[in-house]
Amino acid sequence: MKKNTKVNAAILIIGNEILSGRTQDTNTSTLATWLNSIGVKVNEVRVIPDNEEIIIKTLNDLRKSNDYLFTTGGIGPTHDDITAQSVSKAFGLKYEVHKEAFKLLEAYYKPGEFNEGRQKMVWMPENANLILNPTSGAPGFNIENVFCLPGVPSILKSMLGGLKNKIVGGNPILSHTISLRTVESEIANSLTKVQDQNKDVEIGSYPFFHAGKLGVSIVLRSENKSRIETCNSQILKFVKEKKIDIVDR
Amino acid sequence: MKKNTKVNAAILIIGNEILSGRTQDTNTSTLATWLNSIGVKVNEVRVIPDNEEIIIKTLNDLRKSNDYLFTTGGIGPTHDDITAQSVSKAFGLKYEVHKEAFKLLEAYYKPGEFNEGRQKMVWMPENANLILNPTSGAPGFNIENVFCLPGVPSILKSMLGGLKNKIVGGNPILSHTISLRTVESEIANSLTKVQDQNKDVEIGSYPFFHAGKLGVSIVLRSENKSRIETCNSQILKFVKEKKIDIVDR
Repeated sequence: MKKNTKVNAAILIIGNEILSGRTQDTNTSTLATWLNSIGVKVNEVRVIPDNEEIIIKTLNDLRKSNDYLFTTGGIGPTHDDITAQSVSKAFGLKYEVHKEAFKLLEAYYKPGEFNEGRQKMVWMPENANLILNPTSGAPGFNIENVFCLPGVPSILKSMLGGLKNKIVGGNPILSHTISLRTVESEIANSLTKVQDQNKDVEIGSYPFFHAGKLGVSIVLRSENKSRIETCNSQILKFVKEKKIDIVDR
Repeated sequence: MKKNTKVNAAILIIGNEILSGRTQDTNTSTLATWLNSIGVKVNEVRVIPDNEEIIIKTLNDLRKSNDYLFTTGGIGPTHDDITAQSVSKAFGLKYEVHKEAFKLLEAYYKPGEFNEGRQKMVWMPENANLILNPTSGAPGFNIENVFCLPGVPSILKSMLGGLKNKIVGGNPILSHTISLRTVESEIANSLTKVQDQNKDVEIGSYPFFHAGKLGVSIVLRSENKSRIETCNSQILKFVKEKKIDIVDR
């Protein structure tokens, strides 16, 4: 009854504002954390401009090479929101008014407020499945393994709960962090040995500066709790031998 | 004497910690803002894992399709820092001790502190050009059009000043923002008309929530100041007609 443990995804961030540096993307971190928690590993992230040709090409590449593809951005009412029409073209589907979305937004807005601009947000690839939006009404949509979400971080976050049943993940990827009052060069060789003896566990080493002091966080990641515990013991052994302090972080 | 106005770059973020959601990438925004200021447009960003095969393939794709490629991450002393060896393989260059970097770090550390772990950081592709690091000693490096920088944001930032003379940008990309107390759907049609009449100016529309109120920032981007001014006038015209307030942001 073991589930497929190798479920992966790509994230496609669509938006000139990220490429110009004007806006700091936070959706990658939000989506990646959530996907990991439901057993989906993120293989890669790409950030591309609001350009139809580039969106179509990248979307078709990524949806074929990953179990799931999540896009963010470009589903609002303005001229630079071209994700829905690009996705339609990528799949060879009609770009049309989604009747259910129309009804939803018609009921969401006050009489007279569901204007032409807002009505653009119900144009989607034909037969798209809606992703409900509890924050601001306008839904995202899903076609096959592609899930299109908005770019505004608070709205995106609010939509993930409704997505959970649509994504079939593998085993959750477990993570354990050991933070040390040391520098990477002091532990590099010992850590290499642990990694060599435990190639199936992903061991990351990340220096940090906090409250004026240097430290290193070692992050162990695996689907298998006992494998993480084995690595953890080996690391704590050399940490003790080297008399390195463990810190909370 | 007009410079080439079409200088572009890609950013390659190397690191499992970004893909797991554990770490929020901020280097994209730092690099993109800086690159725009020196006339280099960022075409795309990719985030990939600490995997040699993937690094080599992605690096070779991106360095050929862009004027410049900037990588971040993977140049520290631990086992998961594999950028330098991967870049060496991507270029078919020897991976060896860089004599100048060795001397630099030997002088940087106190006697006895330049240990084996730290010495890993002077292994680079043969004949690499160093990118000096005023914050923590260990340099980045440059081969042809590829610039390899560290992942720690404060260190990366400190190294950009020294890079400026190595990058030949085009005309700086100018940006002007108009923030309005409105929602996107109210201005979508008017803004589409302005974009249709000024196809050479990149016009972005970005909703925001600030101090409990909704608003929209319109961002105009072009190398040509007078083209931005033309769009700005056309936007201010419809904003006035619609009696929309302009806000500081």
